[in-house]
Amino acid sequence: MERTLILKTIEKIGEKVRICGWVNSRRDHGGIVFFDLRDRSGLLQVVCPKDMAENIKDETAVAIEGEVKARPEKMVNPEIKTGTVELKADKIEILGEAETLPFDLRELNLSLPKLLDFRPLSFKNEKIRAIFKIEEEVVGGFRQALKEMDFMEFEAPAIVPANAEGGAEIFSVRYYNHEAFLAQSPQLYKQILVNGFERVFTVCHVFRAEPSVTTRHLSEYISMDAEMGFIESWKDVMGACEAVVRRIFLNVGKNQADNLKILNVELPKVSEKIPQLKMREAQEIIFQRTGRDNRKEPDLEPEDEREICKWADEKYGSELIFITHYPVKKRPFYTFADPDDPEYTMSFDLLCRGSEIVTGGRRINKYQDLLKGMEKKGIGAKNLEFYLQAFQYGMPPEGGFALGSERVVKQILGLANIREAALFPRDMERIDLSLSNTPIKKEKNGEQQGSQKK
Amino acid sequence: MERTLILKTIEKIGEKVRICGWVNSRRDHGGIVFFDLRDRSGLLQVVCPKDMAENIKDETAVAIEGEVKARPEKMVNPEIKTGTVELKADKIEILGEAETLPFDLRELNLSLPKLLDFRPLSFKNEKIRAIFKIEEEVVGGFRQALKEMDFMEFEAPAIVPANAEGGAEIFSVRYYNHEAFLAQSPQLYKQILVNGFERVFTVCHVFRAEPSVTTRHLSEYISMDAEMGFIESWKDVMGACEAVVRRIFLNVGKNQADNLKILNVELPKVSEKIPQLKMREAQEIIFQRTGRDNRKEPDLEPEDEREICKWADEKYGSELIFITHYPVKKRPFYTFADPDDPEYTMSFDLLCRGSEIVTGGRRINKYQDLLKGMEKKGIGAKNLEFYLQAFQYGMPPEGGFALGSERVVKQILGLANIREAALFPRDMERIDLSLSNTPIKKEKNGEQQGSQKK
Repeated sequence: MERTLILKTIEKIGEKVRICGWVNSRRDHGGIVFFDLRDRSGLLQVVCPKDMAENIKDETAVAIEGEVKARPEKMVNPEIKTGTVELKADKIEILGEAETLPFDLRELNLSLPKLLDFRPLSFKNEKIRAIFKIEEEVVGGFRQALKEMDFMEFEAPAIVPANAEGGAEIFSVRYYNHEAFLAQSPQLYKQILVNGFERVFTVCHVFRAEPSVTTRHLSEYISMDAEMGFIESWKDVMGACEAVVRRIFLNVGKNQADNLKILNVELPKVSEKIPQLKMREAQEIIFQRTGRDNRKEPDLEPEDEREICKWADEKYGSELIFITHYPVKKRPFYTFADPDDPEYTMSFDLLCRGSEIVTGGRRINKYQDLLKGMEKKGIGAKNLEFYLQAFQYGMPPEGGFALGSERVVKQILGLANIREAALFPRDMERIDLSLSNTPIKKEKNGEQQGSQKK
Repeated sequence: MERTLILKTIEKIGEKVRICGWVNSRRDHGGIVFFDLRDRSGLLQVVCPKDMAENIKDETAVAIEGEVKARPEKMVNPEIKTGTVELKADKIEILGEAETLPFDLRELNLSLPKLLDFRPLSFKNEKIRAIFKIEEEVVGGFRQALKEMDFMEFEAPAIVPANAEGGAEIFSVRYYNHEAFLAQSPQLYKQILVNGFERVFTVCHVFRAEPSVTTRHLSEYISMDAEMGFIESWKDVMGACEAVVRRIFLNVGKNQADNLKILNVELPKVSEKIPQLKMREAQEIIFQRTGRDNRKEPDLEPEDEREICKWADEKYGSELIFITHYPVKKRPFYTFADPDDPEYTMSFDLLCRGSEIVTGGRRINKYQDLLKGMEKKGIGAKNLEFYLQAFQYGMPPEGGFALGSERVVKQILGLANIREAALFPRDMERIDLSLSNTPIKKEKNGEQQGSQKK
């Protein structure tokens, strides 16, 4: 008999069906056993005599044949979509045996390290699955928004020849008889492609050898990167970024309502126009509000980001805010300085609920200016020879932006730790399983690994 | 003035517009200059007086304002979509200067190594761009087909803890104070996720330290991987694979007709039912046809793959053929043996125009059987502890398949070398630029790096 998905059983009252799935929970009542069976479409109550249910533990994979029955009205369960029906089992076939579970999968009151030790098993919990269904939607929304704006998707390489952008936080690869590196961003490649395809984006893995364990950093994460040529102004880049973020929120709200409910989460409020401040304006506001004087700092601290988001919410009812004009000295060599304010760049961060989720800006497109930018940062042209080729032959004014998908998911779901938003998080101390027994170090500002709940 | 895309100018005869793009070619006729300007939507002829066109070389990025004029009937160019109009320029602004090109970008008669040395510049050639527009469509078709079948997309990690599947062709990463590796496939992760999400797929980068330079291998390539649980038979997996491949061909044919024309390529013929042979049957047919006796070999050689594709085309009018039942000893530890033919596996390759493009099959889902499979291959359980967790708790019968996107593009476009289908190919001797001056080694069977044309 062909398999029927559980959600379809509500259309099959009185019919014989075969359903397949996992035993979500089992309740014995004398000689009768009740299961909830779970497949990718939902949950269904199954009833059978006890002798038919031997060796059926929680999470056993089974195929069940039986008749779909309407439940008596007082037994209807409004909490599940199949709450009007149940299956009276005639036959149960075990497809995959399960050992006794090491903990309660439905409650899942585990510390985060313990949860990650049992990562494969954790995907059987509906809250964990909900996080990754939402993550899929976030990435899908990014892709859809950019395709709608005529961007081409490409694949950025992970193995790169040189530590081109500088910085120590790079992983080294033994590449045949050479040393190569893992890409810290697809930046140079997306810029190269602008000078050919005009508008490009990628969903790629990037790698940062973060030397500490924080709640906000992963050693491998998913970067959603876009870059566009022939811009009239760097505001075009912010406009494209805003369209992407709105599309992501729209799709998650529309297509993942069930999963948001499972996680008991509301999406961030976005006002009709996302507020904008220059970094220095934000620092001034923070000083006025809190007395904390970071006005000479070249960047916003995590606590500044939280404070200015609070301000934007209070003043504009927006949980998103653009911060612009970060200083030239804090941004990479290719960042475009504002001609009217030359110590500051035409760059922006988008903050959401207290943390940056997007960073972007206009780039230098003139070859000679780029050489000067590199010289200022002490970066030799030799390592960037390949990249520089693109700028020798008609690079138009261009810019772009990047979002980390785990960071976006962490912020919109209010997760305490970014590891909860990574299927298989990699950090200093873990690749799947713990690399050692070293106790987990705290980060400087006092944040630490939390549980999977806020 | 707001930018008009070139393709839209055909609707704007008599109007003033601003177009932006690259000078595709320049022709001087006395005091008049003709350009073709190129943007992401197409080409447009521009006419201007010579003094307006100083410093305008091929590939200069410009913005041009002027009036769209209908061309006289005898001047209409049916070869381009804007062939009925031209732009009479009033003003030309240089957005990005171009140096004199080092070779003719339109002909591009370069050896492949030379072409790859100039990769960033090569994207200005329409044939090169066509390849990657088609590649985007291939990946998009894979994604669409699987979403239609209710698969969830996920991101597989690139950094992995151990050389779990064995084999020497793995890259090592200096990972903090540990040795880690680059994933050779997302296999273990997609199987883990089946025991939670049922149906999953990923588009990910995988890494093979191929110790030789061939026309068919890359050191980093894009693997399109799918895996599905609760299968009734391994034929379900072949069915899903066939649906994916048909969707890819359909989308490429429908959405990339212009680019197929630019490349002068026809898609492979696919018969209504893709023919199937067991590997041993294929070997017997090859022996009958050619006298070449490989009937004792555990795998098909490249020349066998070409011969059996020829046979399928002659006999069934299909340029695709499934080969099944590869021997247990040649397939990985998780491959499911056929109970009726236990030395051979429920596995398949899909061949297209003489080369494998998909490999797949059913996997062992019983924990104890998996341990036995590992023991037979001499693989210790310790390295696979994390993976094995998934099999202790109700793993249903499952299987999956994988396609390399560059391989698919190579085969459907008839490219001589897989590097032509990679934006930024990585091999033993190249990461963007050549790693050394070592002459390129030939592969054993006599194939060698060819030019970018077949």
